Amino acid sequence: MQNGDGNAAPGAPRAAAPADDALEDALVAALGDALVTRSAAIEPRYFTAYNEPAGVRPRALVRPASVDDVSRTLALCTRLGQPVVPQGGLTGLARGAVALGGEVVLSMERLAGIEALDRAAGTITVRAGTPLQAVQDAADAAGFTFGVDLGARGSCQIGGMLATNAGGTRAIRYGMMREQVLGLEAVLADGTIVSSMNRMLKNNAGYDLKQLFIGSEGTLGVITRAVLRLHPKLAAPATALCRVRDYDAVAALWNRMRALPEIVSFEAMWPSFYEYVARHTPDVVAPFAGDGGFAVLIECATSAPGGDARHALETALAAAFDAGVVDDAALATSERQARELWTLREGLAIDALPHLINYDVSLPTGELGAFAERCEAALRASWPDIVCVFFGHVGDGNVHIGVSLAGMRDADADAIDRCVYATVRDMGGSVSAEHGIGALKRAYLAHTRSEAEIDLMRRVKAALDPAGILNPGKVL
Amino acid sequence: MQNGDGNAAPGAPRAAAPADDALEDALVAALGDALVTRSAAIEPRYFTAYNEPAGVRPRALVRPASVDDVSRTLALCTRLGQPVVPQGGLTGLARGAVALGGEVVLSMERLAGIEALDRAAGTITVRAGTPLQAVQDAADAAGFTFGVDLGARGSCQIGGMLATNAGGTRAIRYGMMREQVLGLEAVLADGTIVSSMNRMLKNNAGYDLKQLFIGSEGTLGVITRAVLRLHPKLAAPATALCRVRDYDAVAALWNRMRALPEIVSFEAMWPSFYEYVARHTPDVVAPFAGDGGFAVLIECATSAPGGDARHALETALAAAFDAGVVDDAALATSERQARELWTLREGLAIDALPHLINYDVSLPTGELGAFAERCEAALRASWPDIVCVFFGHVGDGNVHIGVSLAGMRDADADAIDRCVYATVRDMGGSVSAEHGIGALKRAYLAHTRSEAEIDLMRRVKAALDPAGILNPGKVL
Repeated sequence: MQNGDGNAAPGAPRAAAPADDALEDALVAALGDALVTRSAAIEPRYFTAYNEPAGVRPRALVRPASVDDVSRTLALCTRLGQPVVPQGGLTGLARGAVALGGEVVLSMERLAGIEALDRAAGTITVRAGTPLQAVQDAADAAGFTFGVDLGARGSCQIGGMLATNAGGTRAIRYGMMREQVLGLEAVLADGTIVSSMNRMLKNNAGYDLKQLFIGSEGTLGVITRAVLRLHPKLAAPATALCRVRDYDAVAALWNRMRALPEIVSFEAMWPSFYEYVARHTPDVVAPFAGDGGFAVLIECATSAPGGDARHALETALAAAFDAGVVDDAALATSERQARELWTLREGLAIDALPHLINYDVSLPTGELGAFAERCEAALRASWPDIVCVFFGHVGDGNVHIGVSLAGMRDADADAIDRCVYATVRDMGGSVSAEHGIGALKRAYLAHTRSEAEIDLMRRVKAALDPAGILNPGKVL
Repeated sequence: MQNGDGNAAPGAPRAAAPADDALEDALVAALGDALVTRSAAIEPRYFTAYNEPAGVRPRALVRPASVDDVSRTLALCTRLGQPVVPQGGLTGLARGAVALGGEVVLSMERLAGIEALDRAAGTITVRAGTPLQAVQDAADAAGFTFGVDLGARGSCQIGGMLATNAGGTRAIRYGMMREQVLGLEAVLADGTIVSSMNRMLKNNAGYDLKQLFIGSEGTLGVITRAVLRLHPKLAAPATALCRVRDYDAVAALWNRMRALPEIVSFEAMWPSFYEYVARHTPDVVAPFAGDGGFAVLIECATSAPGGDARHALETALAAAFDAGVVDDAALATSERQARELWTLREGLAIDALPHLINYDVSLPTGELGAFAERCEAALRASWPDIVCVFFGHVGDGNVHIGVSLAGMRDADADAIDRCVYATVRDMGGSVSAEHGIGALKRAYLAHTRSEAEIDLMRRVKAALDPAGILNPGKVL
């Protein structure tokens, strides 16, 4: 939708900011050469999100190395009326961390690293630019498990994950990013540093300010540091792929499996998705033929000394088989086999589908089956040859949809968006389960949130960022 | 501190509201006789909090029966500049739900009842005035467990529990009230109804507005309804009381027990507390003598079919005994015995201590031992005969302190507050772990929160309640 150098996208924010050279000069004068990159010298990776073409070149790039750098940058930009886009690992999939036209990009990549790990309390203190993988590895080395995992673990940054309240494949066990946070530090648009680096599980002394910054996608403040919970270390997991007749049986299986304290992941693949990835994933032999059934990936693990997650999973699956809920199940017998099952579920193979559009929606788990049928029927009514594949973290009501149409035009893409999101709206679901709204789904926010809610969001935005310099054109 | 009829407490808010008769007339005219009780006719239970003497008589009492009633009441009070105190079950222990002088009380007791229970999704939709016990019973009857439990379950209301983000004895397993909420409806000071009755575990479509109202003690809006998560039903728990040498051993025991997926509660009693309640709790025979050791109450339970929480607890305790972490342990062999262990821990016996003051503070679990020593030493330096007893939910860093001094004067009580909270501040803890700030700890908010944090709280307050009619004199 956007590309090239410096051309603002239609509808992008316009600020009463200084001319290009003057802005660059002001930033360099205030912050120094080491922090500021002039527009012409910015590498494309700072304006190219994962799986997207290059976007709009920012007016300047600032890469702070300290919280104080962030504070000085924002205070200056507020004075100049200069919009700022906070940027993490660019893996958010909602066009929330790229410039839309006329912004300075504030990349957090240098404000990285783990500051402390408290074994007695089970907490880790990290800077916003730290990649998820680094936090997972540090937790692991100290005998803990970090509660969130997702495919982009090597690239995504903790700050971006917090700003979008990232979810992933373990939310049924540990919750999303919001549930991992004990303390948070953020910088407001005017440069005020609000440090709430609480280390306790329970702290009800006044408003829980960190909640303002989690999930608001950089529009209310820039997250700089966090104190995160760690969980007791999980032993090697047991992983199974189950063949299940229909969605009602998937829901019934979930109602059995959610009672297991060992459950970590419960991920479903609709028949069309499973058939496609089973045929098109290189180097992976799928355990069942794709013959019209659902496939459910279940992972169990325990932190209990001497605990046996494999036994728990086997026992539960045997009972589900006896009850006629599961038709067949393959238990991974090696880490490699488990990895292969996950490779099927991650489904990178579908990226080869022509003109693929990805959706990330949620509904209560029991209603996802009906939703998928209704959504596909609505799409097929207008585009008989459309390909729809459904898959996702159904234990928490989150389904991803891949939609592909040979020869898709821009007008088709917009109409397909409208069709999918209308079905979500009509069934009372969310247009964004875990990726956030960004610029991508801004037009559809009102499908999930009421006028009163959006008014209140605007009131909060005006209170925290009255000049509107933080990530304009995103969310609201 | 406060009693009598209609006399404002020193420092209580004064509003530019109509004279008494005119206010009552205006309320009755707008809302009707059925909803409004005139000041003189208000029963003392609407101005008397649990364990407190009667407080200040409100200017009027409004008892809405619908969300629309709440909206009309707040819109009217905003027009009149009339302060309002939202009121639940009055069990909050922080003087957050009583009038301080000049307010109308908005009791939620009539806006009660369960609206829906969705078995497939595992959610319950309730009105704010519903008592906790009713939610627990409904969950139980449908084959689920509600995640929060606390002693006041028969009186406390869901709305008040959400407004104070109540904690209790299961926070290590399920989190506090905040973690139970999927959707929330609240009414703003101007009467706007903001309904965010989300039913999904994952929903990242825009700001998570419900977080504004959870834990802000009725100062930003009045909570009217909520969608709450339910958890798979726990089988009967296994309960043990352990005798542990010192606090380091308590922390070591916690580090073992937190790895058990079956853990529900981990509650410690310091020697002085245990000795007192073991001697003074009627009809309960304590399993150990109070001879200088700590007592730790551990509860384990599982939702797994065929799971054996008792075996898991016994195995973990045997290993802890072999490692020298536990000196002795008594496993309850009946529900009655388990109830007796909980009766010791709940410690109602200490209410008989003269001039008892209760505190509710938190620090990281590993630091609670040092905190208790330092706090007691500081108190004893000024009051050699003071009695301090420590107990609480140490698995989540939350300790309660009972302080008693024969012949305590008001000046002593204030100085004791200052001494306890100074120790909390110096060690980086929270002056309120789970009860909130209310009017009681307002003077100590800055011990836990920075100037920048409190400024931001005020900014949010001004944005949502510019006339300041919602629960003035509480929190901020």
